[in-house]
Amino acid sequence: MAQVLKGAPVVDAMNERMVEAVASLGKKGVVPTLAVLRVGDRADQISYEKGATKRAEAVGVAVQHIALPEEISQIALMAVVKGLNADKGVHGVLMLHPLPERLSEEEVRQVLDPAKDVDGITDGSLAGVFSGLDESFAPCTPTACMEILDHYGIECQGKRAVVVGRSLVVGKPAAMMLMKKNATVTVCHTKTVDLPSITREADIVIAAAGQVESLTAEYFSPGQTVIDVGIHMNAETHKLCGDVKFDEVEPIVAAISPVPGGVGSVTSSVLVRHVIESALRA
Amino acid sequence: MAQVLKGAPVVDAMNERMVEAVASLGKKGVVPTLAVLRVGDRADQISYEKGATKRAEAVGVAVQHIALPEEISQIALMAVVKGLNADKGVHGVLMLHPLPERLSEEEVRQVLDPAKDVDGITDGSLAGVFSGLDESFAPCTPTACMEILDHYGIECQGKRAVVVGRSLVVGKPAAMMLMKKNATVTVCHTKTVDLPSITREADIVIAAAGQVESLTAEYFSPGQTVIDVGIHMNAETHKLCGDVKFDEVEPIVAAISPVPGGVGSVTSSVLVRHVIESALRA
Repeated sequence: MAQVLKGAPVVDAMNERMVEAVASLGKKGVVPTLAVLRVGDRADQISYEKGATKRAEAVGVAVQHIALPEEISQIALMAVVKGLNADKGVHGVLMLHPLPERLSEEEVRQVLDPAKDVDGITDGSLAGVFSGLDESFAPCTPTACMEILDHYGIECQGKRAVVVGRSLVVGKPAAMMLMKKNATVTVCHTKTVDLPSITREADIVIAAAGQVESLTAEYFSPGQTVIDVGIHMNAETHKLCGDVKFDEVEPIVAAISPVPGGVGSVTSSVLVRHVIESALRA
Repeated sequence: MAQVLKGAPVVDAMNERMVEAVASLGKKGVVPTLAVLRVGDRADQISYEKGATKRAEAVGVAVQHIALPEEISQIALMAVVKGLNADKGVHGVLMLHPLPERLSEEEVRQVLDPAKDVDGITDGSLAGVFSGLDESFAPCTPTACMEILDHYGIECQGKRAVVVGRSLVVGKPAAMMLMKKNATVTVCHTKTVDLPSITREADIVIAAAGQVESLTAEYFSPGQTVIDVGIHMNAETHKLCGDVKFDEVEPIVAAISPVPGGVGSVTSSVLVRHVIESALRA
């Protein structure tokens, strides 16, 4: 029986510290504020926005909802981003994505003020993660993985960590963060030969392959800690599931994060904390 | 007997392609030009500048030498950098470092035009390496490692690569470049436990630990390719040497780059090629 690394206690602990920080900002008359920029009305984006708003408001972080019409021009969108850069009452900007295909995310990325880039999408933020500096904001999902490891006291130094997946939003930044914590990190991907032989040797496995329950029993060995970043809908059971086949793997390993209720649940708290950190720095 | 991966043939092949590119630029009246910015007169920097100049001029790339006095102010230095950014006749800027301690390299890094950052020091360049995009210039030394692998036809895809060292100028970018070539990459460092057991399992080892001949026979196994990034003076023999104990390791592995005459010799050709690429894009 593995320890189940649930997200809820991590969120509770983060909330406690965030409420204190918001109170101290309040004494200076500052209300940390997140602007959520949405173009169009995709259901998944609206749902994510609702979740993040609830999490923010619970700790006293205000949310400005900026809903732009599907047919907005690039120029008008850029003007909105520049306006948010200039607005001293806004401490963080979350641009929901994907944008409609017609629009360039890259242009937004180039213009957004790195100091307000709480979702870690600008070059300045990426360079910060790569450099290992803490001056910018790292993407929220890999940060949530590290929060879980931290909260449950799982040591990284001197350990072998394997990250499955090399995306710019999860795999690569997770690798950098684990490296900063002095783990010896291997990044695996679709071209990796004999993946199970590599994951079995790890102390910590971060599963960010984006493949429904693709990491089965043969990928794991006793004593391991497994953090599952995947979120998928299982076509047979119609339940949410991860990259790891939980029922098979949980009996083998020492600790595993569940899906749902694991990494995903911590991610929006990381976003909210970034807004507070930005307000503290401003 | 291992294949010795000498730098000279790599440089020759690069030069051939560069001469062609410079000729085609010449037809448009463009002379690709590198500005080398040096503060003070450190012997090591003057020597590096001479080597790079020789390499540049051999293929028709012009070099502007900007030698600033040791006592220059940060403001005056920044004005020089901004002047180089604005100068359409300059395609690449190499700032020799370290600067005198009084001066901030970070401020220069923040201001230098990423399009002219042929040494890969700006946030834009770092983010480019991390993202795996080819829009910016990667640091020259890890690029030289990849040039050697390419030139000698050493396949990376599906191979296990181990990078020893996690610096921002060599180890981390080398890891990203190997990953882009579809290798499965492990980054090791001073906190790695039982390093020899990890390097022995690799197909390709990039030695960038910065420790004189610290990688001895026990770190290697038959069939491996070894790229040695270290350059040190052996205190006993008074000869240049690398991170790898060449005499011990060469009989074991399949291929190994020598020091001197390996990675270091290719690095300044990479710098020169970046200047030409910048001129082609301008």
